[in-house]
Amino acid sequence: MTAFSSFTAPMRVALFGASGGIGAAILERLAADERVGAIFAGSRSAPNAVRQKVTPFHFDLTREDTIANAAARFGADGALDLVLVTTGVLHEASMQPEKTWREFSAEAFAHAFAINATGPALIAKHMLPLLARDRKAVFAALSARVGSIEDNRLGGWASYRASKAALHQIVRTCAIELARQRREAICVALHPGTVDAALSAPFQRGVAAEKLFTPAYSAERLLAVIDSLTPAQSGQAFAWDGARIPF
Amino acid sequence: MTAFSSFTAPMRVALFGASGGIGAAILERLAADERVGAIFAGSRSAPNAVRQKVTPFHFDLTREDTIANAAARFGADGALDLVLVTTGVLHEASMQPEKTWREFSAEAFAHAFAINATGPALIAKHMLPLLARDRKAVFAALSARVGSIEDNRLGGWASYRASKAALHQIVRTCAIELARQRREAICVALHPGTVDAALSAPFQRGVAAEKLFTPAYSAERLLAVIDSLTPAQSGQAFAWDGARIPF
Repeated sequence: MTAFSSFTAPMRVALFGASGGIGAAILERLAADERVGAIFAGSRSAPNAVRQKVTPFHFDLTREDTIANAAARFGADGALDLVLVTTGVLHEASMQPEKTWREFSAEAFAHAFAINATGPALIAKHMLPLLARDRKAVFAALSARVGSIEDNRLGGWASYRASKAALHQIVRTCAIELARQRREAICVALHPGTVDAALSAPFQRGVAAEKLFTPAYSAERLLAVIDSLTPAQSGQAFAWDGARIPF
Repeated sequence: MTAFSSFTAPMRVALFGASGGIGAAILERLAADERVGAIFAGSRSAPNAVRQKVTPFHFDLTREDTIANAAARFGADGALDLVLVTTGVLHEASMQPEKTWREFSAEAFAHAFAINATGPALIAKHMLPLLARDRKAVFAALSARVGSIEDNRLGGWASYRASKAALHQIVRTCAIELARQRREAICVALHPGTVDAALSAPFQRGVAAEKLFTPAYSAERLLAVIDSLTPAQSGQAFAWDGARIPF
């Protein structure tokens, strides 16, 4: 079984966020993929148990040195074909999606920006220079359709929405710089759909059953979208079904 | 002389950021406008000298209590017709617009988000409830065309761009909630053009002379755009010439 027909095997992959619902499902598929040769699987907590061709590593989005250390490690053995960022925060004890502007707080905004925008930007800073130069290579950060400003018709969730809009702008900005260095490299944001995982757990009521994906299904669709991407699509945002998401 | 034909006189106006280049020019025009009855003119530094119908106040974008105090003061005498936010940061000693991802820093991102996105969000939180209910009322935050993701073709300036994209999303989100409460109210982001003021001073080389505006000209154009706005345009971003800016 392989998800990848457009990359050059054996692929070297770095996965930032291997322990969340979608991240773990992506790791599962990557590990089973015969065209994937090596996977660096990062999480904030203790490293996962070692599996064949999977090398766990620790990182913390809010500590750039942990990302720089990871880059030094990955870069020692050659270029990366795929970098995936699946981290993100929608709710925590100290941060709940706002239903109204009355709930705006500087702390919640700062936390959302730090985790959903600045964190992926720092990963991009250290990982984009490691992307392969002579073949297809992809940097993809998980985002969310609600990050689309144009598509925002319901309101609410201001800090989460704003942090994902910021992420889209960071992806776009990085894609422009990347294109000047590596013609075959691609930098995109991806919307995984509404997935039955911890991030969306409190917000699944009202989501039709056929639109609530398992992590495995979302992972399969996201890898298929990544496989289909061409450099002309760099700097854009796509949903799990390959459809472009407006900014 | 009046800039305003679409508002009900006498207008009550709150200006957050009265001491910057564009803010001071806007204050000048507002003070000279016969349809403007009262202006609350806010700045971080010491209050400006008192002028006819101008009441200075102090605020700090990073201290919500100063904004809440201002709201308590403005709201005591009636509703507001216009709230203008002209604050913003592009460069400081500790923050320079990034030319490349190598210059990304968590601190610069955090600062840009705090000043350019969270600050206006907190002003919106406390000011939108004060907008008049029964007549045209506008909340407008100065943004920048480079905040447009769709329009981003040159790259660079990642933290500034991302913070303004986040601001656009906040404006959009607030506009949706505002429309449910006040049919005649409008919430927008405005691009002032490249203005010969402190914010853009280091970056004016290469800007054609006819595209480098005086603060007075930009202020005049922005107030004309505000006067032309209708509720159907709420939640969008506009340039100094009235043209819509894509997200």
